Amino acid sequence: MAAAAALMRSLDDGEPEARAALRALYAHAGRAHVVGVTGPPGSGKSTLVDRLVELARKEGRSVGVVAVDPTSPVSGGAVLGDRIRMQRHATDKGVFIRSLATRGSLGGLSASVFDTVTVLDAMGKDLILIETAGVGQDGVKVAGAAHTVLVVLSPGMGDDIQAIKAGILEIGDVYAVNKADMADAETLERSLHLALDGVPSRDGWQRVIVKTEARSGKGVDELAVMLRRHRESLAQGGAWERRSQAMAKAAFEELLEVGVRTRIKKNLASDKAWKTLLEGLACRRMDPRAAAQRGLRRLLRGT
Amino acid sequence: MAAAAALMRSLDDGEPEARAALRALYAHAGRAHVVGVTGPPGSGKSTLVDRLVELARKEGRSVGVVAVDPTSPVSGGAVLGDRIRMQRHATDKGVFIRSLATRGSLGGLSASVFDTVTVLDAMGKDLILIETAGVGQDGVKVAGAAHTVLVVLSPGMGDDIQAIKAGILEIGDVYAVNKADMADAETLERSLHLALDGVPSRDGWQRVIVKTEARSGKGVDELAVMLRRHRESLAQGGAWERRSQAMAKAAFEELLEVGVRTRIKKNLASDKAWKTLLEGLACRRMDPRAAAQRGLRRLLRGT
Repeated sequence: MAAAAALMRSLDDGEPEARAALRALYAHAGRAHVVGVTGPPGSGKSTLVDRLVELARKEGRSVGVVAVDPTSPVSGGAVLGDRIRMQRHATDKGVFIRSLATRGSLGGLSASVFDTVTVLDAMGKDLILIETAGVGQDGVKVAGAAHTVLVVLSPGMGDDIQAIKAGILEIGDVYAVNKADMADAETLERSLHLALDGVPSRDGWQRVIVKTEARSGKGVDELAVMLRRHRESLAQGGAWERRSQAMAKAAFEELLEVGVRTRIKKNLASDKAWKTLLEGLACRRMDPRAAAQRGLRRLLRGT
Repeated sequence: MAAAAALMRSLDDGEPEARAALRALYAHAGRAHVVGVTGPPGSGKSTLVDRLVELARKEGRSVGVVAVDPTSPVSGGAVLGDRIRMQRHATDKGVFIRSLATRGSLGGLSASVFDTVTVLDAMGKDLILIETAGVGQDGVKVAGAAHTVLVVLSPGMGDDIQAIKAGILEIGDVYAVNKADMADAETLERSLHLALDGVPSRDGWQRVIVKTEARSGKGVDELAVMLRRHRESLAQGGAWERRSQAMAKAAFEELLEVGVRTRIKKNLASDKAWKTLLEGLACRRMDPRAAAQRGLRRLLRGT
């Protein structure tokens, strides 16, 4: 456990030895079931993840949690509640929890998530839950880095939330209508059913909706069964390998982008021709599209 | 008006003539006050934007609105309400409204926003409001493409919203505590004051908080005054030019990234060496970091 934590820190610092270790681990990973958990803020994702951890531990399965954190390290007090809630698993050696911040970096979130998943996987974790910050690009991206995507919704969040739902509707495999004891839960379930009707099945899996009450734990058993059933469905149809590969490819593509972005920053700061581009932009002699065209010719091979 | 709309459509389609027209417009733009409006879903951004438009029109100023839309064109019914609400300006020639979708593209949102702003600016609009989808990377990015950033918050949105607030706290110049007639408005204002106390002033401007009630229109006058005061403060301190340039630079950098991403997709689809990389990833012979390192050498000049 301590070794894994140390390795993850070294990876964050970009130490070459850590990269080599990760490479070795990667060759032997690929067994864990990676579940991405997403949904709008306030839907109860954290509590539900907590319950799923609890249940898996009761069944003797080991668990890793990767919590993708929306706040900056500076002002990050708001998610302390989650951190504290998860503390009750802190002394359980079968549970490993890691938080990753989404901000303050050049990007590379999927790659960090992927690294963490690789280490947890190689540690022998049976189940790895990636809890996303909620919505938007990050949520969609991270959810795409999983075998199974669990979308958590809850009733009574107003019209604006409808828009968010629309954004994350297609990405789910399993849907939890959480806070199912609330008045509008039936309505939410019905409209979700209707909305999902129009979405084609993926990898031969028909999307399922499970009603849960994360606070009391009601429905969590059934949710866990559905997550496992999705895993089995993937394994039978050959989609398990395909999704594992898509996870690696997503990390690869993101690392490419981070590498390119780093190079662009470097060029803008120190390369003379690039500085001329910026000056042209500044005095409106050149518009952003024209400047980008020239920049790309300087940046990419074979242009 | 019709010509501007046609030009924007041609830009979306990537027509070279449209690009040339934009280049010509860009050289003569730079007069409009661009205000980015962001904040969590449900805080009342759209209604407040609507009020600001109304007020500016009363004062005889012309207005452009760029609404950045979180939903896909397919399932985008949820924001129809906003669209309808804005319809009441539809017959007013002094108001031009354009929606941009955040999803379903290779990126390039900031660039599209920038193009639209350039056209509206060259059309002679005095005020351009960019209304973002809410939170996350897109919100921060688009808000950064403005002279003035207005952050809209409202009370009673629960703990999860706190986390989002933390994420958008530093980017604002003017803050609206909307729905100020609600019970917790005082509390929100106080905690916002406390939170902003720790944030250093930017471009010599001390961040301000204005209480508004977008539904009734209360406080919107004062908000408009503060937005204009920020503009004057920027102009006096020389920061106006600096922010205008930052907007162009953001569009430029994003266009570079889009160009690179397009190239990567092309390589992955058709280049033999890149396909070998993907195969190595798929059979775990190579981990994503190693593959990305090789990819970057093939992609970038001078590596």
